[in-house]
Amino acid sequence: MSQQRKIILSESEMPTHWYNIVADMPNKPLPPLHPGTKQPIDAQALAPLFPMELIKQEVSQERWIEIPEEVRNIYSLWRPTPMFRAYGLEKALGTKSRIYYKYEGVTAGSHKPNTAIPQGYYNAREGIKKIATETGAGQWGSALSFACKLFDIACEVFMVKVSYEGKPYRKIMMNTWGATVHSSPSNLTQAGRSILQKDPNSPGSLGIAISEAVEVAATHEDTKYALGSVLNHVLMHQTVIGLEAMKQLEKAGDYPDIVIAPFGGGSNFAGIAFPFLQNNLLGGRQTRAIAVEPTSCPKLTRGVFRYDFGDTIGMTPLIPMYTLGHNFIPSPIHAGGLRYHGAGAIISQLLKDRLMEADAINQIECFEAGILFSRTEGVIPAPEANHAIAEVIRQVKQAQTEGISKTILFNLCGHGNFDLGAYDQYLSGKLVDFEVSQDQIDASIGELDTPVI
Amino acid sequence: MSQQRKIILSESEMPTHWYNIVADMPNKPLPPLHPGTKQPIDAQALAPLFPMELIKQEVSQERWIEIPEEVRNIYSLWRPTPMFRAYGLEKALGTKSRIYYKYEGVTAGSHKPNTAIPQGYYNAREGIKKIATETGAGQWGSALSFACKLFDIACEVFMVKVSYEGKPYRKIMMNTWGATVHSSPSNLTQAGRSILQKDPNSPGSLGIAISEAVEVAATHEDTKYALGSVLNHVLMHQTVIGLEAMKQLEKAGDYPDIVIAPFGGGSNFAGIAFPFLQNNLLGGRQTRAIAVEPTSCPKLTRGVFRYDFGDTIGMTPLIPMYTLGHNFIPSPIHAGGLRYHGAGAIISQLLKDRLMEADAINQIECFEAGILFSRTEGVIPAPEANHAIAEVIRQVKQAQTEGISKTILFNLCGHGNFDLGAYDQYLSGKLVDFEVSQDQIDASIGELDTPVI
Repeated sequence: MSQQRKIILSESEMPTHWYNIVADMPNKPLPPLHPGTKQPIDAQALAPLFPMELIKQEVSQERWIEIPEEVRNIYSLWRPTPMFRAYGLEKALGTKSRIYYKYEGVTAGSHKPNTAIPQGYYNAREGIKKIATETGAGQWGSALSFACKLFDIACEVFMVKVSYEGKPYRKIMMNTWGATVHSSPSNLTQAGRSILQKDPNSPGSLGIAISEAVEVAATHEDTKYALGSVLNHVLMHQTVIGLEAMKQLEKAGDYPDIVIAPFGGGSNFAGIAFPFLQNNLLGGRQTRAIAVEPTSCPKLTRGVFRYDFGDTIGMTPLIPMYTLGHNFIPSPIHAGGLRYHGAGAIISQLLKDRLMEADAINQIECFEAGILFSRTEGVIPAPEANHAIAEVIRQVKQAQTEGISKTILFNLCGHGNFDLGAYDQYLSGKLVDFEVSQDQIDASIGELDTPVI
Repeated sequence: MSQQRKIILSESEMPTHWYNIVADMPNKPLPPLHPGTKQPIDAQALAPLFPMELIKQEVSQERWIEIPEEVRNIYSLWRPTPMFRAYGLEKALGTKSRIYYKYEGVTAGSHKPNTAIPQGYYNAREGIKKIATETGAGQWGSALSFACKLFDIACEVFMVKVSYEGKPYRKIMMNTWGATVHSSPSNLTQAGRSILQKDPNSPGSLGIAISEAVEVAATHEDTKYALGSVLNHVLMHQTVIGLEAMKQLEKAGDYPDIVIAPFGGGSNFAGIAFPFLQNNLLGGRQTRAIAVEPTSCPKLTRGVFRYDFGDTIGMTPLIPMYTLGHNFIPSPIHAGGLRYHGAGAIISQLLKDRLMEADAINQIECFEAGILFSRTEGVIPAPEANHAIAEVIRQVKQAQTEGISKTILFNLCGHGNFDLGAYDQYLSGKLVDFEVSQDQIDASIGELDTPVI
């Protein structure tokens, strides 16, 4: 074989610890505030929602946190994941830049099980019998459904309406793993009812679905809540992706100039980028890290940095974040996982401190990139992943213009097997882009009465 | 890690040759006959349908045939595939038997690309610009669509109507890879029209779709035909699965007592079983090889061994096969890939000579097995693959009854991401079994006027 395409690791090379970037950040994230008193909350305030071990991880300053053996054992169903050199894509682009991708869709379909499994594990260890959660496109919901099934925990999922209706197979997948799934906003919660009262045709959003799931957990003694992104512990669980990628690139004798990932709440980006950012922070070889959001939900590129709620109704603690305002309802793009109004506290601080970059891309450009990728690399990517591919193509073209070549790594966070309706729209010329006016953003942010920073 | 779950191979351990079992068979398969003269045909007679290199492979007696470097290069998009020890399933079954599975759905969704790529390669090398083919559930059609896209060949797919309607995402997948897809029987061919004339509501079958694709290839100078199973060269291409599994089991320090695969036309079974059958034939350690067919299409367990057509209309050469008669239209089960009236010549000879075994299982038992697998191993299997899992469970229970334990290897030939409608039917109690009466089989076989053996 003249070219090595797939760089693999053995099970014994799987990371033994998650990386907690907080330990290395020059400015630590500001503390979360109580939604009522607006004073910093202590860890104990989160106890109704999360098991203690996850709360400890959420506020931990330790650099490395050991992955329990039982979690690593389950990780081995899909981890270590392969890293590919994208020879086919490189050839199609006519570039001398080297493109690598980590493929997280191998077994479970997306990167979400990386955190669903430990969350299930810690909940089970503390005797929890039921977990409520939200899901956008369904990747997080299906990952948590599987995790709950493994640990014998009941799972109730609030699925954003636009995805519930557009991606029916995702719902069946969750049912197959034993979960109950509701379209959100629903009539089952006060949060859902209040949204439906204002707009009976609300397409839903991750922010609304979070309100519903949090309400269920907060009002039921035996039920906890789980989140698939945004929070510190969730981002940390995903760092196995970047830690593996680093070893794999070492085997390939390479190191990335640029790392790219789609951006919804931050876990995808954190997963692949944080281990490289550590090298940056410690003065090692420098890598640009670019988070790619949809232009229709541009919190990183057009949002403000201030305290805001993680959900739409305002039940969660206030988080220091880049936000479009918690009432912002993103247009119904196909990348449901990216339809979230804010970014997590760590990511927001990193962006504020210019330790990472952000870009926004329209969905048609993303699908063009996804089609090219599928035809050259053999995997039809999730719409979320298409955002990373489109940015890779932008960076490759930029390098060509400058007459240089780059080493680029991106996270192929999942496959698009459940999103082929979107590809059908693209292929039949029916896919549209959504613009967000400055007025719309100003109005949504203007409504905020949360603390400024 | 106390238990190694995933046994992997590096790219350099990928097989360099395909294994041709014909070289080791005590009784070689009988020759194919001309459909008109009923005399043995020579290789040249296949030239209108296939490129010469594939015809050479079809009639080859050589034991090992080298895999071209370009094919191996593309194989590396998903090969070597991982082999898993099914600890989760073993635990759920409470068995001491050891269960391993080779997972072929990793990148391309099923095992079909293993032959689609070399078929595309050899066609391209001989200057072919277009290929016509059939597909059942869509796994073969999508694999060939991707292969054709890579080699810049146009691809026209006749998709069995019941799957065309039930699995719309599969069609979009083929479109995404640039193929044209028709529901079969169609009005585009004489074969299709003749079927529709008799039964306008025909659900279609692989036999009918083959007739349509063969007709297109036979009547267009620039178009060749490609088949996803049955033929010798197709079965041979799949042996990379078993060859890898053998190396992986060696790494695990194990060897299978039983190898199991679903059975439609034979490529799935041949792929995983033939390398182990070679050991049997050469007097090495003996392994039982079990092909699992649906009870609604029981050619191996209830068919006759005689010459029959590979298609419904009777355009292909006559093949010595276990068959239900080429007019047999299987019930619309969800495992569309197994809805085929006959078995290939090699498989039929092996079964005749009792060098392999066959079993038939109803679809409800198969889906039960698939659900258990998904909940313990994290992959929702294709309905075809569920047949293998159901047989594994039968064998495990048999071993328990006998108070012994076995080492069992099966082929998880693909994921069920496009088949969740079927899982939904199962979960909502709407899935039904189909029985085939002896009268029905007798009638279908009774219609045959093909040579007896």
